[in-house]
Amino acid sequence: MVRLTTTRSVTVTDRTGLLTDRYELTMLDSWVRDGSADQNRAQHSAVFEVFARRLPEGRRYGVLAGLGRLLPLVEAFTFDSDEVAWLQAEGVIGEQTADYLRDFRFRGDIDAYPEGDLYFPGSPVLTVRGTLGECVVLETLVLSVLNHDTAIASAAARMVVAAGDRPIIEMGGRRTHEQAAIATARAAYLAGFASTSNLAAGRRYGIPTVGTAAHAFTLAHRSEEAAFRSQVDALGAGTTLLVDTYDIAEGIRTAVRVAGPALGAVRIDSGDLADEAAKARVLLDELGAPDTRIVATSDLDEFVITALADAPIDGYGVGTRVATGSGHPTASMVYKLVAVSDAVGGPLRTVSKKSKDKVSVGGHKTAFREYDDGRLVREYFITDGALPDRGKPVQVPVIRAGEVVHSPGIEEVRAFTAAALRTLPAEALSVAAGTPYLTVTLDNPEETA
Amino acid sequence: MVRLTTTRSVTVTDRTGLLTDRYELTMLDSWVRDGSADQNRAQHSAVFEVFARRLPEGRRYGVLAGLGRLLPLVEAFTFDSDEVAWLQAEGVIGEQTADYLRDFRFRGDIDAYPEGDLYFPGSPVLTVRGTLGECVVLETLVLSVLNHDTAIASAAARMVVAAGDRPIIEMGGRRTHEQAAIATARAAYLAGFASTSNLAAGRRYGIPTVGTAAHAFTLAHRSEEAAFRSQVDALGAGTTLLVDTYDIAEGIRTAVRVAGPALGAVRIDSGDLADEAAKARVLLDELGAPDTRIVATSDLDEFVITALADAPIDGYGVGTRVATGSGHPTASMVYKLVAVSDAVGGPLRTVSKKSKDKVSVGGHKTAFREYDDGRLVREYFITDGALPDRGKPVQVPVIRAGEVVHSPGIEEVRAFTAAALRTLPAEALSVAAGTPYLTVTLDNPEETA
Repeated sequence: MVRLTTTRSVTVTDRTGLLTDRYELTMLDSWVRDGSADQNRAQHSAVFEVFARRLPEGRRYGVLAGLGRLLPLVEAFTFDSDEVAWLQAEGVIGEQTADYLRDFRFRGDIDAYPEGDLYFPGSPVLTVRGTLGECVVLETLVLSVLNHDTAIASAAARMVVAAGDRPIIEMGGRRTHEQAAIATARAAYLAGFASTSNLAAGRRYGIPTVGTAAHAFTLAHRSEEAAFRSQVDALGAGTTLLVDTYDIAEGIRTAVRVAGPALGAVRIDSGDLADEAAKARVLLDELGAPDTRIVATSDLDEFVITALADAPIDGYGVGTRVATGSGHPTASMVYKLVAVSDAVGGPLRTVSKKSKDKVSVGGHKTAFREYDDGRLVREYFITDGALPDRGKPVQVPVIRAGEVVHSPGIEEVRAFTAAALRTLPAEALSVAAGTPYLTVTLDNPEETA
Repeated sequence: MVRLTTTRSVTVTDRTGLLTDRYELTMLDSWVRDGSADQNRAQHSAVFEVFARRLPEGRRYGVLAGLGRLLPLVEAFTFDSDEVAWLQAEGVIGEQTADYLRDFRFRGDIDAYPEGDLYFPGSPVLTVRGTLGECVVLETLVLSVLNHDTAIASAAARMVVAAGDRPIIEMGGRRTHEQAAIATARAAYLAGFASTSNLAAGRRYGIPTVGTAAHAFTLAHRSEEAAFRSQVDALGAGTTLLVDTYDIAEGIRTAVRVAGPALGAVRIDSGDLADEAAKARVLLDELGAPDTRIVATSDLDEFVITALADAPIDGYGVGTRVATGSGHPTASMVYKLVAVSDAVGGPLRTVSKKSKDKVSVGGHKTAFREYDDGRLVREYFITDGALPDRGKPVQVPVIRAGEVVHSPGIEEVRAFTAAALRTLPAEALSVAAGTPYLTVTLDNPEETA
């Protein structure tokens, strides 16, 4: 579905061809000139892989996210004639490459770990095969989407695990770029958050949206009571009243007086949350509102949520820390050429960089996992194409000949993530700083036989 | 200018009405029901302010950014009939509010610190005046744009100061959301970066773009020499050759052999950069290429750049650390109601929250700065509207009756930022951890007379 409406002053395009770094097009330009760009269409002439050399410091696992956003953006990776003319005028490309780009679209194949799956250092989470030219230009788009969304989902999953049965609302949109806010809500939801405050994410992805009132609402009324009355009139007694604008205990008394014992919840957004929640619970019970829930917000993350486990809190709202990946706002995924053919129709040769501190393993990798009684115990990859006799392949086909062939709904991805997290033992799920639960390495059959 | 083209699978809209949190519309719904939303059109019924209670830990100043992106987004803050219907179906708003939103646009006034200006804890960087309804719905959009762009510009400015005369290329797009990448390039450029790798930012904002080749380019050729030859053929000897794919010294020898002494630059992207740069400089000089520059990349930030001050490096490329705000990916700006009228035509009353740890100063603030010999020495605000006899007002009108009245070009903003940084003394510009150079407080004339 494509929905577009023009308003006055904002320039938007849904083509993604320019969402790239200049060097991809200067490299392409060189390959178009020497004929490498489109060589060997029949037998894929290049293989690029996405992987992370490491997890963020202290993390034991990561959750891959962004694939559902990325695949349509790859399909939309095109250039219109104005964009091509601009690239020429800027000296990025010459005439031949201009011709190449005018009807460019990616026609190769992509395989990937399913969205929401776990990943570890070395996991080949996405593999792009095609001509050298069509693969090289996707680098920035692929990495932008996966690095951002994976950072959010990886942090969000830790918060979800820490919260146990208590639902979490994503409310971090105001702390990140306005479009990243929508992707943040999506990534947090697939990682197990219950809902979001972001309306655009609700509309675009069908994520449940929630939200009641800000401090401004109370301040704008003549009294806290008038504000609560107005909110209950509009939203019913089942709403959540924000009780900390002036004094929490007074706010709770007013809230129950106005809404009665059917009051849905009170929200506390300041102070020592464990202490305030304990006092609020006692007070709500005294006021005859034992079913009124307590929602805590204010700079929460997986560590604070863990520390609040014994407090009488029924749900959390998390903003800044989920939108910024809880200290790690980007995954460190890279997009690397691992195999290439030197001549039209020639065989692929393995390539890898030898740079100090950035050595890569070359070759097209196929990853496998082994489980023991439902518990993930090993992940490894082979590069020689011979299938091993044990383990389950991790990648699935997601694009074939340029067409998306994998598009699970967000609820399906969310369920997949929850199931993936259940394959980890308790120690891997701890929020305490640790080392990666697994490191993924080469294990070609002939080398271990 | 509005440019729109449909492609197949990507949904884009340039209306910004849904880039908001649900609670803004539930609050609006309540105010529409009780008649507060549109009261008092003639005499602004509400004043909201944006400010930061604190700077990121260790920072001495911040650089405000995002205003040039925000203002058109405020003009585009509208809802189409499908969006309004969706909001009704989701139970966010009732029929009356649906009518209100169908022809909604912001018709109030906004004043702000000029984009690129310095800010400190308490600086009222943006003030929104209008009806309660039209002001409350802008909260998320305003904060998303300012918090993101300001975080980038504030980090970028520190890197620019640390780099001195050496130019910095922004190349962090792959580490952040694909749309945030464009805003990142813009914010870094206005803070003093020399260029960006991001083509969309180049096209949209006229920022100079640069880029040459990745390791994949070298790996895809049969030899490093073949790769360099291909790049020099395409881009000329003035290009920058990436010399660390295999062995740096060998790479430099090959680069000079291929391009000759007119080789523009070599790029080093791994290893100990100070050490490698020193060796590279000696080698380039020995090879008769004294004018070939050395560009260093790889996890640079203001601290590493400071440490490299004595290394023979001619320019930097910064990616991850600028795109993630160098450890502080969001500014902690908030949007608070500070004054409101209770009745149609009634006077504004000052309001402020009393929550523990989040106390606010109420009242519509006007900020002033005092300089001594070009040096910023004081910033304060008044709330009573009486002009003080000293100091220069900081805010400028940016929107009047809903129309943007302030739209400097990006070069003008960049020059403004550079001038603003020159008003700080050396100790405030240090990258070492410190406290804010200033804290901005209330100083009503009658209280100091």
